[in-house]
Amino acid sequence: MDGKGISKTVISRLPRYFRYLGDLKDRGIERISSRELSELMKVTASQIRQDLNNFGGFGQQGYGYNVDYLYTEIGRILGLDRTHNLIICGAGHLGAALAGNGGFAHRGFLIKGLFDVDEEKIGKSVHGINVYSMEALDYFVSGNKIDIAVIAAPAEAAEELAHRIISCGIRAIWNFSNTDLSVPEDVIVENVHLLDSLMRLSYDIDSYTG
Amino acid sequence: MDGKGISKTVISRLPRYFRYLGDLKDRGIERISSRELSELMKVTASQIRQDLNNFGGFGQQGYGYNVDYLYTEIGRILGLDRTHNLIICGAGHLGAALAGNGGFAHRGFLIKGLFDVDEEKIGKSVHGINVYSMEALDYFVSGNKIDIAVIAAPAEAAEELAHRIISCGIRAIWNFSNTDLSVPEDVIVENVHLLDSLMRLSYDIDSYTG
Repeated sequence: MDGKGISKTVISRLPRYFRYLGDLKDRGIERISSRELSELMKVTASQIRQDLNNFGGFGQQGYGYNVDYLYTEIGRILGLDRTHNLIICGAGHLGAALAGNGGFAHRGFLIKGLFDVDEEKIGKSVHGINVYSMEALDYFVSGNKIDIAVIAAPAEAAEELAHRIISCGIRAIWNFSNTDLSVPEDVIVENVHLLDSLMRLSYDIDSYTG
Repeated sequence: MDGKGISKTVISRLPRYFRYLGDLKDRGIERISSRELSELMKVTASQIRQDLNNFGGFGQQGYGYNVDYLYTEIGRILGLDRTHNLIICGAGHLGAALAGNGGFAHRGFLIKGLFDVDEEKIGKSVHGINVYSMEALDYFVSGNKIDIAVIAAPAEAAEELAHRIISCGIRAIWNFSNTDLSVPEDVIVENVHLLDSLMRLSYDIDSYTG
């Protein structure tokens, strides 16, 4: 089971299942029914059944889901059974906040270095992670098996930065700049568009208050 | 036109349209066809037509969309024709990064104060925004017409923090903690689950590289 053939929509929901199953596991719960999981996660039991049926054979009628098995399988499908090496481009507050997030390392996402153009920052360390000059990027990436580059830089710098990153051979970008990147087909981009998210909240407020 | 009756899926795509239309406007482009917008945004022209037809009368066969009109209307639907006052709970790196994001103020999201429990941080200022004690929360919120509270705190603290925020009368939460919040029905939460996003990227990497 490699997760291929599962729709993108279902895949995008897997991290949330993984999070809840991890909590249940930590609490020593071994089995859970779709109804109980539904109440916990506030989605319909039928969606849970539909989503989890994609994996085949996880749920048994009347017995519920085996929490540990489901947790492990979903983790494997999400690639969490291996570690990933990351670099962060941009050592400002956002880069530093990401570097200091212990939750990432806990899931095998290891931040190996920060990169910046600011001479003031280069040579220092943030949460124990060194800040390097952008000049050192190629050398560092080839020596450290980097899987993922994080763009924590302003939109104006993002496109050129992505180009630099890709030219080093990195094929996955976690993009925090408020712009969409043009990348070759074999490069994957996951966007965190904060302003878009804030606008969705703003819509909801206004649709409530009128 | 207040955006009511438009599906949640379409609403969630509006900020991206708004972003692209704003760029076009800045470049002095007055009209754009669904085909041109499709090439730019890398979604099908038929999805663009479907999405934008929700607003009725924006597109004219053979003339394309009026960029300025569409930009203004979408902005209005997203509530961007008014300002929103924000506070950030948590003055760590993430809180500071959000406080320093100039793009938010540019869209009318004004950060009025940071709040923390750390005595070291209280009384200082970050990007010109004061850091207050959590004790001052009620007083500050009632005096400053706060619409949105940002939770930039660890998952362990998030639930209690949300409770405090809601008890001050705030009805919209932008949640950066890696947990889902239990809130009353009239409170809106927009989540930015960073680890979930990173896991989606990890899935994609592994499904590419095998």
